[in-house]
Amino acid sequence: MSAGAIGSADAYRSRLGVQGVFVDAADKEPYERSARHGGGHAAGVLRPGSEKELAWAVGMASQLGVPVVVQGAATGLVSAATPTADGRQWVLSTQRVRDVLEVDPVNRSVRVSAGYRLSDVNRAAAEVGLAFPIDLGADPTIGGMIATNTGGARLIRYGGVRENLMDLQAVLVEPAGVLVGSERSLRKDNTGLIWAQLLCGTFGAFGVVSRATLKLHPIQRQSATALVAVPDTKAAIHLMCELEAEFGEMISAFEGLSAGALDAVRQHQKNVTVPFQTTPSYAVLVEVSSAIPPGRGLDLEAMMMAWLERRMEAGDLEDAVVDKPAQLWRIRHSVSEAVQSLGKILAFDLAVSRSQFAEFRDAALQLVAEIVPAAIACDFGHLGDGGVHLNLVVPAETAPEKIAQLRDAVYDLTVLRFEGSNSAEHGIGPYNEGYYRRYADPQTRRLATLLKGRFDPSGLLGNVHLG
Amino acid sequence: MSAGAIGSADAYRSRLGVQGVFVDAADKEPYERSARHGGGHAAGVLRPGSEKELAWAVGMASQLGVPVVVQGAATGLVSAATPTADGRQWVLSTQRVRDVLEVDPVNRSVRVSAGYRLSDVNRAAAEVGLAFPIDLGADPTIGGMIATNTGGARLIRYGGVRENLMDLQAVLVEPAGVLVGSERSLRKDNTGLIWAQLLCGTFGAFGVVSRATLKLHPIQRQSATALVAVPDTKAAIHLMCELEAEFGEMISAFEGLSAGALDAVRQHQKNVTVPFQTTPSYAVLVEVSSAIPPGRGLDLEAMMMAWLERRMEAGDLEDAVVDKPAQLWRIRHSVSEAVQSLGKILAFDLAVSRSQFAEFRDAALQLVAEIVPAAIACDFGHLGDGGVHLNLVVPAETAPEKIAQLRDAVYDLTVLRFEGSNSAEHGIGPYNEGYYRRYADPQTRRLATLLKGRFDPSGLLGNVHLG
Repeated sequence: MSAGAIGSADAYRSRLGVQGVFVDAADKEPYERSARHGGGHAAGVLRPGSEKELAWAVGMASQLGVPVVVQGAATGLVSAATPTADGRQWVLSTQRVRDVLEVDPVNRSVRVSAGYRLSDVNRAAAEVGLAFPIDLGADPTIGGMIATNTGGARLIRYGGVRENLMDLQAVLVEPAGVLVGSERSLRKDNTGLIWAQLLCGTFGAFGVVSRATLKLHPIQRQSATALVAVPDTKAAIHLMCELEAEFGEMISAFEGLSAGALDAVRQHQKNVTVPFQTTPSYAVLVEVSSAIPPGRGLDLEAMMMAWLERRMEAGDLEDAVVDKPAQLWRIRHSVSEAVQSLGKILAFDLAVSRSQFAEFRDAALQLVAEIVPAAIACDFGHLGDGGVHLNLVVPAETAPEKIAQLRDAVYDLTVLRFEGSNSAEHGIGPYNEGYYRRYADPQTRRLATLLKGRFDPSGLLGNVHLG
Repeated sequence: MSAGAIGSADAYRSRLGVQGVFVDAADKEPYERSARHGGGHAAGVLRPGSEKELAWAVGMASQLGVPVVVQGAATGLVSAATPTADGRQWVLSTQRVRDVLEVDPVNRSVRVSAGYRLSDVNRAAAEVGLAFPIDLGADPTIGGMIATNTGGARLIRYGGVRENLMDLQAVLVEPAGVLVGSERSLRKDNTGLIWAQLLCGTFGAFGVVSRATLKLHPIQRQSATALVAVPDTKAAIHLMCELEAEFGEMISAFEGLSAGALDAVRQHQKNVTVPFQTTPSYAVLVEVSSAIPPGRGLDLEAMMMAWLERRMEAGDLEDAVVDKPAQLWRIRHSVSEAVQSLGKILAFDLAVSRSQFAEFRDAALQLVAEIVPAAIACDFGHLGDGGVHLNLVVPAETAPEKIAQLRDAVYDLTVLRFEGSNSAEHGIGPYNEGYYRRYADPQTRRLATLLKGRFDPSGLLGNVHLG
């Protein structure tokens, strides 16, 4: 530990106390690991115990000129919340920032400090029949979700974090420790610039979220779930249009599953049953749900059965299984782990227009076959949003240059030919920052430089450079 | 017309032609009127006939240093799209900017040039069973809707423009005529700053919207509508919670109507029937609707009848009328005009948290009674969003100082005591700019100054100063 770092630790301890400042290797280690793509080394870890301490810590970092990377639950997939390898950065953990978790059942909203988890919010909301319906495999902090503008499996119904964010409070590096935004819980307010929109999905580059007000939704009281086999993605998209025409606002998930993804589950998740005798070329997990209680004149299961029969008769699907939601979702949720059991993974988090999805996927798989012929496509994702986690299993011996060539080719195809997104949900971090620079247009980077220059002129905050 | 203005007109005509540049008084006049609060005087009117001409015109204005105010259909209610009184500004009309109106039924989206109207989009969308469900009395241009972040009567279900904006293209003043944003039609893209979020709801202060991609939704195929009498707003809010618990995502409107508003309709809209024998203290227009076609297992009318009966038995309402939606909506839509027939109007466009609505309205009405005892409250609005158009009929002889005192008092109550919005839907324009300066916090104004300094350093664009 350098003399500078020791001096910083003393300064921080004066307010945050012993539990608020970790500098020993063993204490720091849990904060140095990312959920994917390795980790880094921290000069130390700051663990403010309240929103006020968080603001103070950011202000102190600003005054000391000490670089910090903000970390919630470290569940992100692009390394944006873990320190760099050089050991210069302090991790600023928000996990102890838990001043407020207040559900307002009449307003259908919740005021919550940055360090609470998604599961904390949903537990409190469920007590009054409400939910914050961002549906994820991980359990991130609210602050992290806002910085990443998290999406998830129910985005087709509810939108992502941005659409459900009423307002936020955040701390600036410049002016040091100053709070911006508000904790107002309004469904509409049309009076100019909104910090929430600026700070959501910008990965902590311009400020540190300390508190947010989120919209809540009535909890779902009935649902019907089916796993449907279709010949290809074109048929899947056709089925999606048919579903939307009949179920409209009731649709809460439309998830795509490739044969590779289903086979991976079959082979490596022995306690999960894939119901089809032979793996179909492509499958979709369809969920419709409603807040309307059973017995009030809506029976979604009966409607789903009738709809599947009609679609079967029309030749729109090959096979369909209706089962308890938990059974079918287990298949979907086990894909990621199952695919990882197959070997070395190259993962993409992409989105295109739904009307171009089938053509895009065909073109992407053709590129894969050309560049790394032995790769196995195990793609899956939120097809109803045009999203796909194009996860590829590549032979362990694949040359790094081939991997790099494949990444370039798939991203170029997505962004340049199909006007798609090279990071649909995961955001931008050190893992994919190079591709941000490859595709972000000059005016957008100019805007980022302008904002960074004003709110963090010494570049103390975060691991990504959006300018 | 000044020599400078004549020189500008010649420069503009070189590209926009005779139909693209109006300088005669009679030609300019229609562009000088606002929908409320009078008008101004234009040096001239620019009418680019395409997105390219729009970009060129903005670039030329930038080079000439000529101030412009962008105008769509001039339906806004805060004078943000009409020229100032001094005759220095040119009106830049987007009405002829109609290059593209392309509905993508599979993606449920539309690419549309700024000059198309809301009704144009909905006509095109309806052909494929879709809708852009921002529900307004007026028929604004898409560009104007984006600049104003329009809300409307179905915001409770669909959100406002911001939540339904996939992306936009806009023209900057600096660098002169440069295009930012994109026309991508993605439901998710998590790669940093988004021009759409910055330019939506900032009233054209930082750039001129030329094209947008919007989300569309399945058209509603059945609905049930009721007008319900309740003793007061507290009971109305209770009823809203009961409704949400039973109908969840099916709710598409929950509109409040005061006794004053209903009486105004009774007295001045002879062709509109208010169904109750005596005017209730307060009423709500309740609409539930669904894209699920009739005959598929959902009967919203039957469910609504059963629900109203249960609520009647529980003592939650005094009276209820279920009728054809068009009949009941006519009452709601005729309020604004009816109230104007009563005399001099003082209008507010406010929103608070729904959980504080009843207390807020009581406090506001008490203030009104104290300051202008003869005023009649004819408030109405989107109660499900916590919104209220607190329109007051004040005696013609009321002293201007009393009016000013009342405005200050009501806005202060809304913003300072109830953490509400002083412009929930209408945005900021010359009409209410003073209140923007009264309430906007220093850091937000600093952000606006920063952006304005970069993208419009000479302050050529628009009628509001957000800095």
